[in-house]
Amino acid sequence: MTQIDEYLRSNLDRYLAELSELCAQPSVSARGEGTRECSELVAHLLARHGLSVESYETAGNPVVVGRAAGRSPRTLLCYNHYDVQPPEPLELWTTPPYQPTIRDGALYARGSSDDKGELIARLAALDAVRAAHEGELPCHLLFVTEGEEEIGSPTVGQFVREHRGQLACDGSIWEGGGIGPDGAPELILGARGILAVSLSVRTMSRDAHSGGAELFPSAAWRLLRALSSLKDEDERILIPGFYEHARPPSALDLELIDKLPSFEAVYREVFGVKQFVLGRTGAALNRAVFEPTCNIQGIATGYTGEGDKTIIPAQASAKLDFRLLPDMTPDDILAKLRAHLDRAGFDDVQVEAYGTGMMPFKAPPDSPLVRLTAETGQAVYGKPARIVPIGGGSTPIYAFSGPLGNIPVVTAGVGYWDNRAHAPDEHVRLEDFLNGARHVARIMEGFAGI
Amino acid sequence: MTQIDEYLRSNLDRYLAELSELCAQPSVSARGEGTRECSELVAHLLARHGLSVESYETAGNPVVVGRAAGRSPRTLLCYNHYDVQPPEPLELWTTPPYQPTIRDGALYARGSSDDKGELIARLAALDAVRAAHEGELPCHLLFVTEGEEEIGSPTVGQFVREHRGQLACDGSIWEGGGIGPDGAPELILGARGILAVSLSVRTMSRDAHSGGAELFPSAAWRLLRALSSLKDEDERILIPGFYEHARPPSALDLELIDKLPSFEAVYREVFGVKQFVLGRTGAALNRAVFEPTCNIQGIATGYTGEGDKTIIPAQASAKLDFRLLPDMTPDDILAKLRAHLDRAGFDDVQVEAYGTGMMPFKAPPDSPLVRLTAETGQAVYGKPARIVPIGGGSTPIYAFSGPLGNIPVVTAGVGYWDNRAHAPDEHVRLEDFLNGARHVARIMEGFAGI
Repeated sequence: MTQIDEYLRSNLDRYLAELSELCAQPSVSARGEGTRECSELVAHLLARHGLSVESYETAGNPVVVGRAAGRSPRTLLCYNHYDVQPPEPLELWTTPPYQPTIRDGALYARGSSDDKGELIARLAALDAVRAAHEGELPCHLLFVTEGEEEIGSPTVGQFVREHRGQLACDGSIWEGGGIGPDGAPELILGARGILAVSLSVRTMSRDAHSGGAELFPSAAWRLLRALSSLKDEDERILIPGFYEHARPPSALDLELIDKLPSFEAVYREVFGVKQFVLGRTGAALNRAVFEPTCNIQGIATGYTGEGDKTIIPAQASAKLDFRLLPDMTPDDILAKLRAHLDRAGFDDVQVEAYGTGMMPFKAPPDSPLVRLTAETGQAVYGKPARIVPIGGGSTPIYAFSGPLGNIPVVTAGVGYWDNRAHAPDEHVRLEDFLNGARHVARIMEGFAGI
Repeated sequence: MTQIDEYLRSNLDRYLAELSELCAQPSVSARGEGTRECSELVAHLLARHGLSVESYETAGNPVVVGRAAGRSPRTLLCYNHYDVQPPEPLELWTTPPYQPTIRDGALYARGSSDDKGELIARLAALDAVRAAHEGELPCHLLFVTEGEEEIGSPTVGQFVREHRGQLACDGSIWEGGGIGPDGAPELILGARGILAVSLSVRTMSRDAHSGGAELFPSAAWRLLRALSSLKDEDERILIPGFYEHARPPSALDLELIDKLPSFEAVYREVFGVKQFVLGRTGAALNRAVFEPTCNIQGIATGYTGEGDKTIIPAQASAKLDFRLLPDMTPDDILAKLRAHLDRAGFDDVQVEAYGTGMMPFKAPPDSPLVRLTAETGQAVYGKPARIVPIGGGSTPIYAFSGPLGNIPVVTAGVGYWDNRAHAPDEHVRLEDFLNGARHVARIMEGFAGI
């Protein structure tokens, strides 16, 4: 163990240089900015670390796969992505997003944490494990690095289904994870699914003067009525059958959830929240992740400029997202939403889905891989690991885990709660980067034996 | 009579030239564009027609007053405004808005109908009456031309109250009016009032990730709940006391309303309306003007760009307007709205009024001035006049009529239903312009004797 730690610490500068090299390459999937160049750089980096590399073309950005043979027949898959969120607003960055800069013990750049930092930390772990084992790896390693995670991984599901044979494995380290505010490692074992849609309605061919509001049908009121029909004031979603397939949390899920610290104070401070949804506090806040949600991302209708304008809007639209629990599917919820609107008399309200959505996924919290990750996490961070049965957001775990035979999935990342992923001044703390590599190295070492 | 008509017809080109001169001068009150220059031009024009002119400074744009003495001690006030709506979108004008152009029997320009066309038609009427009466006017005339009608006449009320003495009169011809689709003259005797407000709510200091929608309070949902509390699905406004002071229509009001033609087919065609509010059709559509309204002008919250963005909006706002029946007041409704929101638990929803609103006003439909206007209208247009007890929109009639002793008010305008007032390609048909002048001339002639 000490040998791995010494290797990583003494080579830290080299890995930070690699991370800087990777972060200096823009790769904004939302607008196809530098993604191909970045995929080539990733292929080059994987090869530099002794992996045999293949880049697969998809309908979107290439998936870069690297593999290295080990002594055990068992294979551990490392999922990462090389694409990043847009860096805007640029003026809020202390140093430019693509000029990686180390200050105050952290490396600042777009992607430094999410997810280029994690990729490089895992390559460092691979080197350290190999060095500690006389040039051999204890198990097979498979790096799968996609380029469309930040836009919802629209093509990776098909890629996995078409390459099941090449991607066969026995477990996976997902992206994300890291430590909580108290420094304890956190393992996230799943993600809610998502269905994002627009609801839109047109009641007239053009806006009318509001002096005729007793006559002309308002698209704003019409949309508002349709939205109101979706959820009651107790946050219960009113679409018939919405909860039909929602898998309730197990006793173990609830036990794990209740062990998690409360983020109440942090959220109150960072987001200025006075009252949480339904007045939830303490443990109820954490348990609420086992509720599916219906969120309004935005509403556009009528005049929104300075002052007022006496019009009746002819057109109105809203963007919504639904977060789904395991066994709910975006397709099913989309069909039920449409059926509900039709039944409720809103057949004039158009529904359009943004992409195909993401399926929910929840890995069993009692697998040997979870135990290994928790134990090695405690060894690295000196605190008992916390197990998060499911995260509130959505990631394409389901696209891998299902087709690959319901493999166990864990996280072992380089993040902490304020690393500004997706925001200006994204950074990775050097200590977190090092610890993330130390943690993954221990998982790579132990995976053959579980 | 024939003498007046001959005078107007033979001098038509001169008045169209004056109208072009006036329309070529921009006067957009919404952004203070050319309004002062236009007030000077109006003063110049009034003087050119033999009126003694005074311009009054206000907190906003000047009010230009012109007076001419007549044989009778009775005074007829002509209300007009020299400001116009913004001309945008410019690309939809066939010829530029400030380059008055005559084609197909109409003069096209911003303000050609609303309200510069009416002002010039009335000056033409004055000339014609004077010429027909050996250089004398049968009654005193008072032209009051303000410059802020298109932004809700925020200062004219105070101006009238402060100059009651100078503005003393026995009746008024208001702006607007003209002929219906069948060519019959229409007299509009009043206007609903208006209160325009913004409702806004902030639930967090910044947007949150929608993966936490079970925790973070959404401003979008909060605003939507507040809006829903204002009106039920039967269009009944739920603010306690909202209808308290609403004066119901008289039997004569309903008789007059029921004589009006239905605009149902026109609205269906021009606005593509499939179903009117509450499924109203026929006579019910006309009668509905005797309902106060609660209209959403627009809603702004969250992300409204391309695609979707997984955020929970921290801030949401809506612009509303309420149209008020006689005896309702904007102040009272504003107070009741605030009280309702507080009582319903929406004390976090901010309410801000745009200006002071406008009071409703309804002149009695059986005054001698109404009879005179109807009879002379029939003489000019060859069809019985229709009397509209109240219009759905709002104008500052109340600001004059109340302080000046509840004087009777009528309209005798140059408009027709498709003159594109407020829109691109605003125009006045030359025949309508001429008939409007003929009609007003007859009212000026007959006013001394009623």
